[in-house]
Amino acid sequence: MAIFVALQSPEVDVMGLTTIYGNVYTTLATRNALHLLEIAGRTDIPVAEGSHVTITKGTKLRIADFVHGADGLGNQNFPPPAGKPIEQSAAAFLIEQAKLYPGEVTVVGLGPLTNIALAIELDPEFSKNIGQIVLLGGAFAVNGNVNPAAEANIFGDPEAADIVFTSGVDILAVGINVTHQVVLTDANREKLAQSNGKFAQYLCKILEVYFSYHCDAYNTKGVYLHDPTALLAAVNPSLITYTEGVVRVQTSGITRGLTLFYNKQKRFAEVTEWTDKPTVKVAVTVDAPAVVKLVMDRLIDS
Amino acid sequence: MAIFVALQSPEVDVMGLTTIYGNVYTTLATRNALHLLEIAGRTDIPVAEGSHVTITKGTKLRIADFVHGADGLGNQNFPPPAGKPIEQSAAAFLIEQAKLYPGEVTVVGLGPLTNIALAIELDPEFSKNIGQIVLLGGAFAVNGNVNPAAEANIFGDPEAADIVFTSGVDILAVGINVTHQVVLTDANREKLAQSNGKFAQYLCKILEVYFSYHCDAYNTKGVYLHDPTALLAAVNPSLITYTEGVVRVQTSGITRGLTLFYNKQKRFAEVTEWTDKPTVKVAVTVDAPAVVKLVMDRLIDS
Repeated sequence: MAIFVALQSPEVDVMGLTTIYGNVYTTLATRNALHLLEIAGRTDIPVAEGSHVTITKGTKLRIADFVHGADGLGNQNFPPPAGKPIEQSAAAFLIEQAKLYPGEVTVVGLGPLTNIALAIELDPEFSKNIGQIVLLGGAFAVNGNVNPAAEANIFGDPEAADIVFTSGVDILAVGINVTHQVVLTDANREKLAQSNGKFAQYLCKILEVYFSYHCDAYNTKGVYLHDPTALLAAVNPSLITYTEGVVRVQTSGITRGLTLFYNKQKRFAEVTEWTDKPTVKVAVTVDAPAVVKLVMDRLIDS
Repeated sequence: MAIFVALQSPEVDVMGLTTIYGNVYTTLATRNALHLLEIAGRTDIPVAEGSHVTITKGTKLRIADFVHGADGLGNQNFPPPAGKPIEQSAAAFLIEQAKLYPGEVTVVGLGPLTNIALAIELDPEFSKNIGQIVLLGGAFAVNGNVNPAAEANIFGDPEAADIVFTSGVDILAVGINVTHQVVLTDANREKLAQSNGKFAQYLCKILEVYFSYHCDAYNTKGVYLHDPTALLAAVNPSLITYTEGVVRVQTSGITRGLTLFYNKQKRFAEVTEWTDKPTVKVAVTVDAPAVVKLVMDRLIDS
C-alpha cells in the first residue's frame, strides 16, 4: 500500500525499491517488489535486493507471515514477476544513490534496518550523503507488537536499528504509538472496493488477511496503516508532530528490540549509554483523518 | 519524610522498619532508621537490618549519596543512635510478621526490593501471608532517574524487583511517572520551617541537600515527594488511580532496571515473557495537591 501511495504521489520520485525480510524472507520480498512494480506499470524503477540475514549474522530471523499471508501479499497466488533485481545489493544501491544526489535522497525504511545499517558501516560518507531517513519503527512509551517490549521492524534487527539511530543521520522515526492512531476501517475498504482505482481494486483482495489478523490480535474491524503513514510523513512532514532526543535500542534480554527515547530533560549523575549520542526526531502525533484521506484518494485515483 | 508521615498517620500502625542500601549502604541505613525513631520518640518500633548485597550477589551496589548526602540525612553529622536493630534480618522479620497477621500486613517498599524478594524466596507462604506490597519503584512509559531507562529503586536490584513483580502478591507500584507530579516547593519548605512542628523543623535542615540535587539534576526549585507519595498511596488508595497488567524487569544490557508494563490489550502471535504472569497494579494518576497537603499537615502537626 505504501509503495502504491508513493507511486501515486506527485511530490515523490521513487528512485528504487530495496527489499528486506520481515513479513516474508528477502528473496520473496524481492519477487513481491518486482511484482508490484509490474502491476503498477513502473518496471523502470530498479529493485535492489537486501540482506538475507541480520547485521550480526546468526540471529534467527522472525518472519511475520501471519500478518500478510505466507506470500506477503494476502495469499493471492500471483504469478512470478518477469523482471529481475539489479545486480547491486540494497546497501550498495543506497550508497550509490546517496553519493549521486548528496543531501537530496530520502530513505523510507519500512522494514528491519539491516540494509541501512550496512550502508552506514560500508561507506563512512553515506551518513553525510543521505538526506534523511524516515523509518517505520519503534514503540515509544507504549507496548510493542511482537511482544510487550518490541515493535516488529526494530525487533527484526535490533543491532542494525541501534546503528541507524546513533549514526547522526537526520532521522524521523514513526513508531506504533503514532501509526496505531491511523486506522483503515471496514467502510474505507468497502469504498476502495467500489472505486475503479486499479490499486484500490488490487489492494482490497490482498487486505483480507491483514483485516483477519487485526481481528485476531486487536479485536478490531479496522487495520493499522503503518507503512503508508511513515511514507506520507516523509512526503508531508506537517501531517505529524515530533519531539527530538536520543534513541537507543536494547539488544539483549526480555526487552530485546525495545526503543528507548531520552528526552534530555534530566541531567544524570553518571555517564549513560545515551550521553553524547546524536539526536533523532520521533513522531508524537499524527493527523490521522488526513492520512487516511490521502491514502484513499491516491489509491482510488489510479 | 515518609517515616515521619507514617508515624503521624492515625490510620497506620508502624510494625517495624526494615533497612536497605540505596541512598546509603545498609549499615548506615540501619543507623539512620534507629536515629529517626529516637528523634520521633518511637524506640518501641523494631528496626530489622536488611541485606547488604543484591539478591544475585556480586552485583556492585549503586549508592546515590549525592541525593541526600553522604550520611543519607543531608550531611547533618547527627550523633550515632543509642538503639540497636533486632537480631532478625529484614527478610525474616517480614516473614514472621506476615505469618503472625496473615493478610493484614502492608509492606511499603521504599528502596531496592532485595529484602522482599528474599522473603518470597525463603518462605513459600510469604506471598500468601502478606496483605499487600506498595512499592516506590519503576518508570512506566517515562525516562528513569538513574539513566534514561531505569528508576533508582528498581535499578538497585533488578533481579529482586522481577521476583517481586511476578510473585503473585497484591502489589501497587508507584513509579516516578506518578511521583514526579508531586512537588514540595520552596514555599512549602518555608512554611515547614516557620511551623513549630518537631518533624517539620528537623526535615527542613535535612532537605537542603535534596533541594540542591533537584536544582542540579532537574533545574527546579522544588523537590519530588517520591517516598511520601508511595506511603500515602498505601494509607489512602483514593489519592491515586491505577491500571492493572504484568510488569517485568529487564536485567541486562543498556536498559537494565527498566520496568515494562504489559496492558494485555494485544494478543501476541508468540508466547512472551509476560504471558501467564500475575498482574500487578501500577499507579497512573495522583491527587498531587492532596498529597502535598497531607504531608505538610502531618509534619507541621508534630
